[in-house]
Amino acid sequence: MNNKPITEFMSLEEFEKIKKFTKGKETPFLVINIEKIEKNYEELVKNLPYAKIYYAVKANPHPEVIKLLDKKGSNFDIATIYELDQLLDAGISPDRISYGNTIKKEKDIAYAYSKGIRLFATDSKSDLQKLSKNAPGSKVFFRILCETSGSDWPLSRKFGAHQDLIYKLILECKNLNLEPYGLSFHVGSQQRDIGQWDNAISQCKYLFDAVKKEGIKLKMINLGGGLPSRYIHHTLDVELYANEITRYLKEDFEGNGNGFPEIIIEPGRSLVGDAGVIISEIIMISKKSHMNQYKWVYLDIGKFGGLIETIDESIKYPIFTEKEKPHEKTKEIILAGPTCDSMDTLYENYKYSLPEDIKEGERVYILSTGAYTQTYSSTYFNGIPPLKVYILE
Amino acid sequence: MNNKPITEFMSLEEFEKIKKFTKGKETPFLVINIEKIEKNYEELVKNLPYAKIYYAVKANPHPEVIKLLDKKGSNFDIATIYELDQLLDAGISPDRISYGNTIKKEKDIAYAYSKGIRLFATDSKSDLQKLSKNAPGSKVFFRILCETSGSDWPLSRKFGAHQDLIYKLILECKNLNLEPYGLSFHVGSQQRDIGQWDNAISQCKYLFDAVKKEGIKLKMINLGGGLPSRYIHHTLDVELYANEITRYLKEDFEGNGNGFPEIIIEPGRSLVGDAGVIISEIIMISKKSHMNQYKWVYLDIGKFGGLIETIDESIKYPIFTEKEKPHEKTKEIILAGPTCDSMDTLYENYKYSLPEDIKEGERVYILSTGAYTQTYSSTYFNGIPPLKVYILE
Repeated sequence: MNNKPITEFMSLEEFEKIKKFTKGKETPFLVINIEKIEKNYEELVKNLPYAKIYYAVKANPHPEVIKLLDKKGSNFDIATIYELDQLLDAGISPDRISYGNTIKKEKDIAYAYSKGIRLFATDSKSDLQKLSKNAPGSKVFFRILCETSGSDWPLSRKFGAHQDLIYKLILECKNLNLEPYGLSFHVGSQQRDIGQWDNAISQCKYLFDAVKKEGIKLKMINLGGGLPSRYIHHTLDVELYANEITRYLKEDFEGNGNGFPEIIIEPGRSLVGDAGVIISEIIMISKKSHMNQYKWVYLDIGKFGGLIETIDESIKYPIFTEKEKPHEKTKEIILAGPTCDSMDTLYENYKYSLPEDIKEGERVYILSTGAYTQTYSSTYFNGIPPLKVYILE
Repeated sequence: MNNKPITEFMSLEEFEKIKKFTKGKETPFLVINIEKIEKNYEELVKNLPYAKIYYAVKANPHPEVIKLLDKKGSNFDIATIYELDQLLDAGISPDRISYGNTIKKEKDIAYAYSKGIRLFATDSKSDLQKLSKNAPGSKVFFRILCETSGSDWPLSRKFGAHQDLIYKLILECKNLNLEPYGLSFHVGSQQRDIGQWDNAISQCKYLFDAVKKEGIKLKMINLGGGLPSRYIHHTLDVELYANEITRYLKEDFEGNGNGFPEIIIEPGRSLVGDAGVIISEIIMISKKSHMNQYKWVYLDIGKFGGLIETIDESIKYPIFTEKEKPHEKTKEIILAGPTCDSMDTLYENYKYSLPEDIKEGERVYILSTGAYTQTYSSTYFNGIPPLKVYILE
């Protein structure tokens, strides 16, 4: 895999353990290393000790993942009432859950409220009115639209609103029996430019100050997600991100009378991403013509089996073979999935390398696939069942 | 919807019937009009009476769709052994099934062969050898790589091989106990340029002639899929496509000693596309700023609920509201799905229009969603269950 040794991503010991555990299991499947999530969680707590963690359930809702994070004392951010039901069924109390999706049906707000949810994200007048009617007295935080360039999986303009609108929404809370509690933003998933947090935090400060003049004291900033996981292209360590974010917060909120706000963070990818490995078999290796430069390598997993984040080759997973040796002789190839849809090609422009003597039937290990894979897999496209999951033992 | 009346896509009677049948059912869901598939099938038979139809099961594998096409005498093209099992369970005999995926595991070939499948697609040396070993005596057809520009959902280079390679593969069959039966191609799904069939058929003729000199007589051409369904942008009628394709075939294969080959066609989208309607509710209508030109309209279905073909805004479904009137006052909007992923935006560059007075909670009817929707839906992304399906009664 492009001459990076596997040890940049996991220990040889872990790789051996995974190989041993998964031997004989029919591909494709995802294997999750719960210990790694625990380690990531503890590291995040250490680096941002003042932040309340709300795990973004959508990243990986596997019951064992939820169980671990429950045990560690994490809070949870949900996208839908289906996720809410899952958490409540797992015995998690509603005061540890925030409803972070700004797109909500009225009846879903009412349902969440009836179950005890009192913390909601919002970004529009319409949603605020629905909250007022169906979740009176709740705390609301307002999502501001911020710049997401620099991220591998940018979040564009779908969520959040501009400051002018957010300002008015905050003031409207007075008449709506809602508590304007704080602000949130999301700098884009797998964000490589730490400076984007600086910009977003400045925007928060501006709004904190503006509404203060109207007698409203916001208390919380939700830093969203965006902390990176480890894919092919190196990112800075979470510790560095944390230190910089802390510095931005201090600069804006300490020593100028604002006081340090309550901080929430919603990690998903950074907690579970590198805790998952998808194991797949090479179905076929072929050429299109005698003179083709690149062979096509077809795996038994593709875009519709869980690797949808390869769209536009956005997320580049580290991929290794069974007998991974550094510096072995490799060749650049084109990588594709198994379905009869040619959109189901994984990497054609960005060239992955595989050992020259790789053969059909051999396994590949697609690392850092713990987030946004299994639940993205299609229900039965081409008749293929959804991706299986195992917990590493 | 951009000032095209709904009658360009379905009769008012059918629209009323669908509204009546689906009233009170919780959105989102897909409703399939089996009668329409029957009509499309009959029309195709009428227009290409000499072609053997192999329905591309992946387009919509719903049991009722399979049942109807079985009754009509259709054959079936499968992508995987899972689809094979479904068909066999439905009582369809293996001599009516072709294994059209060129990417196959050895054990899957063996399984299909053991169940009686004797017709396989191929495009590589490796697959041909696997077929020889696991499906001896079978008929194989060779997929040629052809140009797919002009199609809304192009099939790029994932499938097929160039003529030079196909030529050699055909000759190799002699020593492999396989019958080189014919050629196939696929001009890309929703292909608007009929001329692409002309090019592909010419390629076939060239190969028919070339291998004839080596004593091999190919017997069949599989025209693949690509016939259009009705989306926003008008396409020519299937009748015109059929007439042109027939003309190309005659020009190349009649009157020059070749004889008219057996013709196979693998329709998917053109049979089932316009037989499906997805019914969705508007969750939220909002603005990002006071001064924004376009409102955002969020539906309870999006890319991960079944509308994955909106990627890059490729397929543009006709969308109508409950009380669809022509010439009513409309406004251009941005359309997005319900999940916490901003890739789940449906149409932002291409502007759809909705009535000015449209409200949250109202329904929209997404037409021509009978193909490549339900089975594409994600298994539980954001906790949302896969798309429900109803058969119109």
